[in-house]
Amino acid sequence: MARSTTQGKAKGKKAYAKAGVDIDLGDQLKRGLKRSLREARRPEVMGTVGGFGGLFDLSKSRYDNPVLVSSVDGVGTKLRLAFDSGKHEIVGQDIVNHCIDDIAVLGAEPLFFLDYIGLGKLEPEVFHKLMKGMSAACRDANCALIGGETAQMGNFYQPGEYDLVGCIVGAVEKKKLLSGKTIKSGDQLIGLASNGLHTNGYTLARKIVFEQKGLKLSSQLPGSRTSVLNALLKPHLNYASLMQKLFRKFNRGATSAKRAGNSIFGAVHITGGGFTGNIPRVLPAKCDAHIRINSWRKLPVFKFLAAEGGVDQDELYEVFNMGIGMVLMVEESAAKSILEDSRKAGIKAYPIGEVTRGSGSVHLVDAI
Amino acid sequence: MARSTTQGKAKGKKAYAKAGVDIDLGDQLKRGLKRSLREARRPEVMGTVGGFGGLFDLSKSRYDNPVLVSSVDGVGTKLRLAFDSGKHEIVGQDIVNHCIDDIAVLGAEPLFFLDYIGLGKLEPEVFHKLMKGMSAACRDANCALIGGETAQMGNFYQPGEYDLVGCIVGAVEKKKLLSGKTIKSGDQLIGLASNGLHTNGYTLARKIVFEQKGLKLSSQLPGSRTSVLNALLKPHLNYASLMQKLFRKFNRGATSAKRAGNSIFGAVHITGGGFTGNIPRVLPAKCDAHIRINSWRKLPVFKFLAAEGGVDQDELYEVFNMGIGMVLMVEESAAKSILEDSRKAGIKAYPIGEVTRGSGSVHLVDAI
Repeated sequence: MARSTTQGKAKGKKAYAKAGVDIDLGDQLKRGLKRSLREARRPEVMGTVGGFGGLFDLSKSRYDNPVLVSSVDGVGTKLRLAFDSGKHEIVGQDIVNHCIDDIAVLGAEPLFFLDYIGLGKLEPEVFHKLMKGMSAACRDANCALIGGETAQMGNFYQPGEYDLVGCIVGAVEKKKLLSGKTIKSGDQLIGLASNGLHTNGYTLARKIVFEQKGLKLSSQLPGSRTSVLNALLKPHLNYASLMQKLFRKFNRGATSAKRAGNSIFGAVHITGGGFTGNIPRVLPAKCDAHIRINSWRKLPVFKFLAAEGGVDQDELYEVFNMGIGMVLMVEESAAKSILEDSRKAGIKAYPIGEVTRGSGSVHLVDAI
Repeated sequence: MARSTTQGKAKGKKAYAKAGVDIDLGDQLKRGLKRSLREARRPEVMGTVGGFGGLFDLSKSRYDNPVLVSSVDGVGTKLRLAFDSGKHEIVGQDIVNHCIDDIAVLGAEPLFFLDYIGLGKLEPEVFHKLMKGMSAACRDANCALIGGETAQMGNFYQPGEYDLVGCIVGAVEKKKLLSGKTIKSGDQLIGLASNGLHTNGYTLARKIVFEQKGLKLSSQLPGSRTSVLNALLKPHLNYASLMQKLFRKFNRGATSAKRAGNSIFGAVHITGGGFTGNIPRVLPAKCDAHIRINSWRKLPVFKFLAAEGGVDQDELYEVFNMGIGMVLMVEESAAKSILEDSRKAGIKAYPIGEVTRGSGSVHLVDAI
């Protein structure tokens, strides 16, 4: 990690500036970095102490009994699309939003984010694009980009390639922690639309699109008006801002541990594992989830993967989000207003199924 | 990230189990994982909610005004020694202790740690050794191993290789935050001994040892009774437990923002950048640090690198820790008891220099 060295006078440097910059690349990097960091701050961030760690003054936040919710993840093989297209901003947004959505399902608001970029040799343009994407996504989510590390490790990574890792810390008032334990038979499933594959299923999708079908990034995606690149590279959506609004409006109960006063009882981020893998993670053992898989408009990319991939239906819904990035388990009587509020916030939302008595399994139902 | 999928019934799974395990590897991995996670817990960890995020109940901790201190880092090219020797536990300890020491200098105690392992194909034995090292280091530091991700990305990493990233979150009472701002001329520098290179300087060290000198891992390190492997692979030491004790005993002041009642005014983790790069990060602009570089016993590995490396002295102290892993800036009158307490705690400690009026620079002084 020699490259994360700061030499000479570095007092007052932020953790990121310390950790993210190869001083041999000179001020150019630092200027871009400062801009990115200014964009993605919160009042709780204390930036004036030597750069060994990022400082977040939780005492300035309004929590009585904060539970810290943390997650670490990588972008995975979607990175290849950034390597091939040079659109590194997108995967920067991807990693931030993926992490934010992972903790949003527990009721948490994001507080701060740290990134790790591992590569052979740092290229300023790539670094700036990644920073631009990450800081924009953090800013949009009111999340502080508080620290990071760029590790130049010759021979670990191929030229022009890198790995991108994100770590997020959020918080939720203890009594508002969303566990899914109060979900019960009769609850409705609301699906919040994705804009594409987000960050999952790229190994299979690339195999189908490029190997089996011989398409190129610039090819028009069959059945669409857009290119393969645009269809595959859409950045992971951030549902957290909408979800925070919905929780405030529809979960006024004294505690999320009881149904009383609440209308949203669980949330599931449809990430690796799709519907089948993720919904059981919050579904009570005595409930099943029935998903009406024809109840939302499929994006051309999913139609294409379904029609041309030679993948059976179960696997499709296990590998891809199929157009639904987040599922909410809600009180039947509140479903309509939650759908309306989501659409008003600019996120397509569909009633995609319901909860019944069962054994914690997910059923894909063809019928409308 | 398909491999981080959990499928079917996974309710109640911890973030780590969710994120860290390839289900195709079956229960074997999960059993080892559960053991590791049991070892490295804290009472604040809430493990019973669906595995999208790690949960840490900060309301159970004793903080009035907590400042969260976070850091992300990688092991860097020291990993090659683990690849070549199979001693993956060591780099597991390295990443945890490196992160812990980075936040310890701000006065923070570690709360929880998350890891990311990026590789081509997961080998259970490697995974278990890494987990064993990380969980042992977390347990020793009373830090919860709360989450992680193991990303299998074919073609990103060479067979048998991986990257290892750690993210730590700690906390410090706001008024006890150690900024270094009260350091003044006359303060003494206490060096806490390292046991080797820790996690820095391996690119240069490997070049000297293997390329220039043609030694092997099994060769005896000239001037020592140990092998090159043992000398180079020693795990990064954790100074945090000792430092927390010292802060409690020697910093009884109402606030760390004033000298009154305190005797430890600053701490510096000697990591990438060595003495020259790291000390200025906490040294006030009107102070210099004078390091008597003959004031501690050099380990054979540093004697060897100095004698055989053809590296000039300034660079040695800029790339390697040269036997000092942590530097404390302390009140002259307290130096003796701080040295004694450190030695009693089993960490060699030396008076290595002092602070004078100056301009934020570090001076290496040969004279004893």
